[in-house]
Amino acid sequence: MASRIGLGFFGLGTVGSAVVGALAERAARLERQIGRPFEVRRALVRDLAKPRAAPLDAAALTLDAADVLDDPDVHVVVELMGGVEPANSYVRRALQAGKHVVTANKEVMAAHGVELLELAAAQGRDLYFEASVGGGIPLIGPFRQDLAANQIRQVHAILNGTTNYILTEMAAAGVSYEHALAEAQRLGYAEPDPANDVEGADAACKLAILASLAFTSPVRPADVYREGITRIRAADFRYADELGYGIKLLAIAKRGAQGLEARVHPAFVQKDLLLGQVGGVYNAVWLHGDLLGRALFIGRGAGPEPTSSAIVADLIDLGHNIRRGVHNRVPLALDGRLPVLPMAEVRSRFYFRLWVSDRPGVLARIGAVCGEHAISIASVIQKEVDQHASRAELVFLTHEAQEAAVQRALARIARLDVVAEVASLIRVEDLAE
Amino acid sequence: MASRIGLGFFGLGTVGSAVVGALAERAARLERQIGRPFEVRRALVRDLAKPRAAPLDAAALTLDAADVLDDPDVHVVVELMGGVEPANSYVRRALQAGKHVVTANKEVMAAHGVELLELAAAQGRDLYFEASVGGGIPLIGPFRQDLAANQIRQVHAILNGTTNYILTEMAAAGVSYEHALAEAQRLGYAEPDPANDVEGADAACKLAILASLAFTSPVRPADVYREGITRIRAADFRYADELGYGIKLLAIAKRGAQGLEARVHPAFVQKDLLLGQVGGVYNAVWLHGDLLGRALFIGRGAGPEPTSSAIVADLIDLGHNIRRGVHNRVPLALDGRLPVLPMAEVRSRFYFRLWVSDRPGVLARIGAVCGEHAISIASVIQKEVDQHASRAELVFLTHEAQEAAVQRALARIARLDVVAEVASLIRVEDLAE
Repeated sequence: MASRIGLGFFGLGTVGSAVVGALAERAARLERQIGRPFEVRRALVRDLAKPRAAPLDAAALTLDAADVLDDPDVHVVVELMGGVEPANSYVRRALQAGKHVVTANKEVMAAHGVELLELAAAQGRDLYFEASVGGGIPLIGPFRQDLAANQIRQVHAILNGTTNYILTEMAAAGVSYEHALAEAQRLGYAEPDPANDVEGADAACKLAILASLAFTSPVRPADVYREGITRIRAADFRYADELGYGIKLLAIAKRGAQGLEARVHPAFVQKDLLLGQVGGVYNAVWLHGDLLGRALFIGRGAGPEPTSSAIVADLIDLGHNIRRGVHNRVPLALDGRLPVLPMAEVRSRFYFRLWVSDRPGVLARIGAVCGEHAISIASVIQKEVDQHASRAELVFLTHEAQEAAVQRALARIARLDVVAEVASLIRVEDLAE
Repeated sequence: MASRIGLGFFGLGTVGSAVVGALAERAARLERQIGRPFEVRRALVRDLAKPRAAPLDAAALTLDAADVLDDPDVHVVVELMGGVEPANSYVRRALQAGKHVVTANKEVMAAHGVELLELAAAQGRDLYFEASVGGGIPLIGPFRQDLAANQIRQVHAILNGTTNYILTEMAAAGVSYEHALAEAQRLGYAEPDPANDVEGADAACKLAILASLAFTSPVRPADVYREGITRIRAADFRYADELGYGIKLLAIAKRGAQGLEARVHPAFVQKDLLLGQVGGVYNAVWLHGDLLGRALFIGRGAGPEPTSSAIVADLIDLGHNIRRGVHNRVPLALDGRLPVLPMAEVRSRFYFRLWVSDRPGVLARIGAVCGEHAISIASVIQKEVDQHASRAELVFLTHEAQEAAVQRALARIARLDVVAEVASLIRVEDLAE
């Protein structure tokens, strides 16, 4: 029998159990494909007694990371813990111990990926991370290989399924953010503490990874401007629809003359664009390469099965490398040192919604402030009037303007005596298909 | 200086010129990525005097294939001739001469891919063919690597940009097939002789390649049922729209209990599906894998730049292999021997449109024939009446039925004295997103 490829797992929750199950189910085919079988030898868990779906002997479970790291028959560590520490240290120690690593950990790869990939190369080992972005959608492989001929100009992506589910519900059912969040939690699409998803941190990590690969220049999570979906109101969806748009939490990376843009925030997206129609928990990555032109990849961005699709694919590819005796076949190409533009300097169109006094001259005063800040108004909607409070709702859509100018103008507008509230500010991304 | 990777081209038309141009433009980056430069040494052409966009010395051009095949400094042959012969023989001779091959040739890969890949493996050389399907959309790489963990259940794809452009125009402008074809020819999207595209042969070759990879079992072009778009009328688009559908030329591959399905034909596709909204010259591949679930890839399926995106990516990957001294790293896994179901046994829903005598009892007689063939009618539309000829237009949408039964029933219906013409028969693919 061909020698086995020994696997050690860090973490054996729903994703880990799905991976172990998938490996067992297709063991014969995998052995034919890569010439030798996988063997799951050890798995670090937090609770030995917890019932698990994984078809794995109880003796393989351990509470001690050293049992995985020091086992000479563990050739590949599969890291599925999530969070930066201790996962990052375990990945580092695994590479130092001469093991290959397959990880689904976006936080580790976004914060420490460059150093870890360099360590892997120095150690003569491979580090795979397809599952860290976009769940089962092939992205890391395509960005490193299939799209490698292109200079990538732009990426517009939906990288968080939880928020896309919430926004899709708000758009379809006209419900409040709180209502849609509760529904997402009930269905298991959102965590009890949803902050990491709804505040955009999850998407920012994934964008940092994708942007680094797309622009072959390191982009860190801290470089990514980030704004979540918690302030979006049902009214914003109604106005967006009327103006021809939907609202998505977009992860945007652009290569411009002044530097890179890297930002995660809610955005108006034209209704008739395919990207704007990607609903529910699906993820989508729309990119523009200089040779390829525009391309769009859509699929399930989370969940045990889609994630195990990516992890098992990484294991298969690693199996090919082990059989052929190669590693680091596609070297990390992050030789760029492109600056990331401060958000204040980014230009886009803007939508903002105000509550104002329902009396003459208000529009002129707001328009004057915009004019002083070189912000040109494309459309105005005045519709809702709250007659008890003699307040009116005013909606503006601007032409392209600089972020800093719009922020300054809105601060001024908020202080006008005729303005009761600046209720919303959402960027508008007009995209050409 | 690192030793060069010598390239020899078979064919230097618009695609070949774009590849040579792309290699020249990004030479420094490519050399950084793969550690050595590419050098275009020879190119077989049909006319030495023809003006070319490629930045290539006239001395590199030749009319004699042997100048490419016998040059020991040509390490990689880039085959861009199209058509089975002589391209197939040149690829074979190149591999026998110890050269790697990158080809964009769907006819060669669909008809002879298995043998050529086996020859490449036996020769210790690589054969790449990403550009043969879907232009610049990464498909061959993802199917062989990123999706390798999955058992692929279904592929529904738009693989021919010419016909998708024509159908998109017919749908949007309500014009005739002939009008839309003429427009496509004027824009250079359709050939002066459009048969290969509009009759579905091009899509059938591409589907044979994709289905072989998806099911790891050889599917030949002759196994693919094929029907073109030339009989679709503006009226079919009107009825499709009314019934909630668009019309696309679909390439469909399914794994079923009875065997594989592999077919290219026009199909009703629900209007609200993303696949149904992929318009113009774009291609799209929608697949269902057992782990991944559903995923959709969309991009430009033809044109010099998108095609060169795929070819240069293949060259880069080959460059990594050459540097690492590996070949055939991902072995061809076509170990299945799955039978392809005859079209007569395929089941789907059907739309058909008839011209009938405008008098009582017609519907009952047609319904009776359907009933005798176990075909259950889901909807009927009777709307258009040609009062001069006392003819009426009748449209039927069936529940799922067997192809053979529908063909037999329609042959019977065509012979009814009340039926003037069976004007259309189009399959209906109800897809779940």
